[in-house]
Amino acid sequence: MSTPLVIRDRNTMRNLILTNQTMGRRIGFVPTMGSLHAGHTSLVDRAMAECDDVVTSIFVNPSQFGPQEDFERYPRDFDADFNLLAQHDVRWIFAPDVHEMYPPGDSTRIEISGPAEPYEGQLRPGHFSGVATIVFRLLQSTPANTVYFGAKDWQQVLVVRQMVRDLGLDVEVMTCPIVRDKDGLALSSRNAYLSESERTRAQTIYAALQQAEENWCRGLAIDKIELKVRDMLSAREIRIDYADIVHDESLRKISEVSRNTPAIFLIACHVGSTRLIDNILLPSQT
Amino acid sequence: MSTPLVIRDRNTMRNLILTNQTMGRRIGFVPTMGSLHAGHTSLVDRAMAECDDVVTSIFVNPSQFGPQEDFERYPRDFDADFNLLAQHDVRWIFAPDVHEMYPPGDSTRIEISGPAEPYEGQLRPGHFSGVATIVFRLLQSTPANTVYFGAKDWQQVLVVRQMVRDLGLDVEVMTCPIVRDKDGLALSSRNAYLSESERTRAQTIYAALQQAEENWCRGLAIDKIELKVRDMLSAREIRIDYADIVHDESLRKISEVSRNTPAIFLIACHVGSTRLIDNILLPSQT
Repeated sequence: MSTPLVIRDRNTMRNLILTNQTMGRRIGFVPTMGSLHAGHTSLVDRAMAECDDVVTSIFVNPSQFGPQEDFERYPRDFDADFNLLAQHDVRWIFAPDVHEMYPPGDSTRIEISGPAEPYEGQLRPGHFSGVATIVFRLLQSTPANTVYFGAKDWQQVLVVRQMVRDLGLDVEVMTCPIVRDKDGLALSSRNAYLSESERTRAQTIYAALQQAEENWCRGLAIDKIELKVRDMLSAREIRIDYADIVHDESLRKISEVSRNTPAIFLIACHVGSTRLIDNILLPSQT
Repeated sequence: MSTPLVIRDRNTMRNLILTNQTMGRRIGFVPTMGSLHAGHTSLVDRAMAECDDVVTSIFVNPSQFGPQEDFERYPRDFDADFNLLAQHDVRWIFAPDVHEMYPPGDSTRIEISGPAEPYEGQLRPGHFSGVATIVFRLLQSTPANTVYFGAKDWQQVLVVRQMVRDLGLDVEVMTCPIVRDKDGLALSSRNAYLSESERTRAQTIYAALQQAEENWCRGLAIDKIELKVRDMLSAREIRIDYADIVHDESLRKISEVSRNTPAIFLIACHVGSTRLIDNILLPSQT
């Protein structure tokens, strides 16, 4: 347990990181939008195990929310976040305000095609441009050796990796496993929106993914695996945005003949008015 | 006179710069598309005066040319460029091929709004996104202390400055004055496209800008100054894309009441099939 130092401005943050790196310390960075849960702290713990110091950012990034989305009501609780990060020995909390990250007159955005185009890219226009733009800026402010992301936002990880590769950024990108609640629901700040009965229905998402994994391993046809998942979700009145088996990097649909390639089952769906995403990696069948 | 080292790959280039900076040397960078003339060497000489070492890149960047533009026929003469840079004591020439700068699968672009929107931005869709994307990547490969641009491409300088500010890049951007031939024509690699008679007609561009400057200083109304320039150009069968007096940073039109703000006269026009741009700064009238 240590008391993290809270930093609000980019230059102070950047200079702190650079100074510590000059002294030979490896810095791990966990970017978050706050409202922290055990998914986030698993990233912090991993960073702590691999690095000398950990910095966590707390910034609800307006540019990755669509106009009809939940930017305004996105849960925020800085004091709770601070205490949790203190328990996990985070050294610095970078908590800029919106004007610090997007000063007046700001007009530069990073646009990714390729992995940013399908699925979330299609359903949330501008979302990944907002993600790439803020991750770039956070990495400028916190030029860490390694940055940690959770596998729940699988497509986001692919987009960040693509940007880091294309722009030649000097940071290692680590992906950490999804953390689930006892009932199987993937941890998400948005779970707070669920009513008790919605929460119960939402358990079906992971149950469906587990069934899909079993069926995949049994060799069931891909379209049948997908259909069974859709049926399970629909039976609980969960509205599906997508529920597809795809290549885990290209996000292209997998055909029967190529099912020996690394695959992932991606789901986005609505439980009541809450949109949830989840996924499961499907073991290669070679 | 020294013999420049030619470097083709990004990592070698980056490591060379970083190593020399660690030794305390200041590095100046002059990005070019080759086909070098005295405009470019004026940038090199300025960089040489201000820095310990100068690196020049030669890269005809496909992503800043539109599909109907002159990427294929853009003049290229590496040997002549090499000799000229040797005469000006450039230490390194960074000359990557297209795949080095845009590897297969590349999908990240930098998009600028604000200063990139009017004028060239409107007439050459995607041009400034291509410029920003390549300048960013060149700066990753050649992380110089200072980068030098010519004032002829005024809007380009504004776009680069905007990107450097918004992305917090650690480089100083210097703008150097336009270099003109004896007849007044601003030096440009594209002047090579002009026939002898077109070349004579093209002299009118600078003559018109000089007349505009005089009329500006005399206090002539802005629309009249612009009209006289248009008339002069049209009289020589020079087709005008734009010929406007604008604020030198916002590129917004100047009204009579605000003519004490820093202004610039921007021209883009066609002499035969060759598109030329030029500009002149208009002294503030306070």
